[in-house]
Amino acid sequence: MVAADLDVVGVGNALVDVLSMETEEFLEQQSLIKGSMQLIEPEEAVRLYEAMGSGVEMSGGSAGNTLAGLASLGGRGGFIGRVCDDELGAVYRHDIQAMGVEFPVPPKTDGAPTGRSLIIVTPDAQRTMNTLLGAAAELHPDDVDASFVARGQVTYLEGYLFDREAAGEAFQKAAAAAHAAGRLVALTLSDSFCVERYLEAFRELVAEEVDIIFGNHDELSLLYESDDPIAAAEKVCDLVVMTRGAKGSLVSSRGTRTEVAAAPVARVVDTTGAGDLFAAGFLYGITHGRDVPTSARLGSVAAAEVISHVGARPETPLKDVAAELLAV
Amino acid sequence: MVAADLDVVGVGNALVDVLSMETEEFLEQQSLIKGSMQLIEPEEAVRLYEAMGSGVEMSGGSAGNTLAGLASLGGRGGFIGRVCDDELGAVYRHDIQAMGVEFPVPPKTDGAPTGRSLIIVTPDAQRTMNTLLGAAAELHPDDVDASFVARGQVTYLEGYLFDREAAGEAFQKAAAAAHAAGRLVALTLSDSFCVERYLEAFRELVAEEVDIIFGNHDELSLLYESDDPIAAAEKVCDLVVMTRGAKGSLVSSRGTRTEVAAAPVARVVDTTGAGDLFAAGFLYGITHGRDVPTSARLGSVAAAEVISHVGARPETPLKDVAAELLAV
Repeated sequence: MVAADLDVVGVGNALVDVLSMETEEFLEQQSLIKGSMQLIEPEEAVRLYEAMGSGVEMSGGSAGNTLAGLASLGGRGGFIGRVCDDELGAVYRHDIQAMGVEFPVPPKTDGAPTGRSLIIVTPDAQRTMNTLLGAAAELHPDDVDASFVARGQVTYLEGYLFDREAAGEAFQKAAAAAHAAGRLVALTLSDSFCVERYLEAFRELVAEEVDIIFGNHDELSLLYESDDPIAAAEKVCDLVVMTRGAKGSLVSSRGTRTEVAAAPVARVVDTTGAGDLFAAGFLYGITHGRDVPTSARLGSVAAAEVISHVGARPETPLKDVAAELLAV
Repeated sequence: MVAADLDVVGVGNALVDVLSMETEEFLEQQSLIKGSMQLIEPEEAVRLYEAMGSGVEMSGGSAGNTLAGLASLGGRGGFIGRVCDDELGAVYRHDIQAMGVEFPVPPKTDGAPTGRSLIIVTPDAQRTMNTLLGAAAELHPDDVDASFVARGQVTYLEGYLFDREAAGEAFQKAAAAAHAAGRLVALTLSDSFCVERYLEAFRELVAEEVDIIFGNHDELSLLYESDDPIAAAEKVCDLVVMTRGAKGSLVSSRGTRTEVAAAPVARVVDTTGAGDLFAAGFLYGITHGRDVPTSARLGSVAAAEVISHVGARPETPLKDVAAELLAV
């Protein structure tokens, strides 16, 4: 068996974010549901982009953000996802590799252009995402190399991938490969609408394959149709990680629950990537021998950095931020 | 004669910025001169981009930033510059039009790709720019429509354009068209290396065509080979605007000098665009009947907003920022 020389291997949608700051009225005019992620088609993307104000482009995608955060903390990661051989694809590839994350899947030379998420940030720092999956949706089980997955202590799966059938199969293949190699499988529920769309598939996957589950209260409650979803999730997962926004997080480790406060932020500018970066800090912790409370604090610190500016990837090396706040 | 229904028409390099945060050592390793702008060729751009960390893409270019800032203050502007019909060109076009700036020059369907500036931001918030002009350098005098120029109260020229001969001619044509229509011509010196490269041409242009000159102490001193360059510039320009970084600005209006302090900034993150946004505030002021001190304060406020975050375009509507600080 190969050694687990990577901390985390992520499987997710390779997307470039296009962020613009808009008013509450803009959301209403565009009939967008604040805080959600909706999938859009190319025509809708053109229309919405035209309506949006001047933007900022940055690599994004949930699992990709988590891997970038892990690397920023000093961790070693790999990423599986699909981009096209175009300008945005080159940006995505550059950015994740520049963080030191291994990204072995070659860009597609045909098919849809690189995926993008049009993200509206409102004055309350909430983000509303409108994603044109493009090439990301063409992720195929063949893109998942079992020996690459086996190199990660944890395989981290992004719930959003369920939105396309072949990608869902790639997801299953990665989970099976991880377990065959004796590794852990983590899943982030991503979005309550996403959970709702694939409720049964998610439940089955969690029961059979998931060791660590990430979600907020809404997502976990939907999944288990329960007001105390942690109790339900504890039955099937070793670690249940509930993010609670400004209230921090609640982690159940084999039934032992720990609450950790959010890290202080001078001004919350844009919450895009908050959950992704929490996962980055938490996974960095548990793959580096930290206990659950310390891992959750690392998650809080990473999330605090990313919500203090526009965009879902760290601006300041998280290693420095964590060293200052936690002396780790 | 057509009415001046635009406050400012800018002529400049249409560029998309690619910004990354790097250490001082990175500048040394790459033999880059901190704070400068150098022109690079495609091969060098590929090499440098590979060495750079994860980036952020945003529309940039000096005059374009100024026009975006003017629009953010509520002003009306137009822009003349060249992009190619590619993904970055679409981003540039979208962003400037989304600000409400008129941009009548169609994208080129052949020739070089849209220009980009690889910008290294160091921990001291300084920016070091490495620009691949691409399509921007193909700006041609034919792209300058005299009747469009005549619509602007002020025609604002970016010194960087001197870096290509045809663009320099476009520049001259715009200045001539503005004066033929009885408008004012403003020039920003852009960069001391740029001034040094075209010293004689700049002096001649300023003496013959420029009513308002923008520059910092180094740029103006180089132009006039003098320690008191304002005295020299006053002889040929109605308004001489010297930006002085954290010390604010010094404006000479037909020989009457006014010093204005910089606006306070909680944390200076990235000084990219500071001069461009100062010019935006100042030009907004003088085209809206404000006196020189108020116009300079508007410049300070606009610059303060843009240096408080990554990127050279405002994140918060400057109209709101100015209203809060200056009650204008």
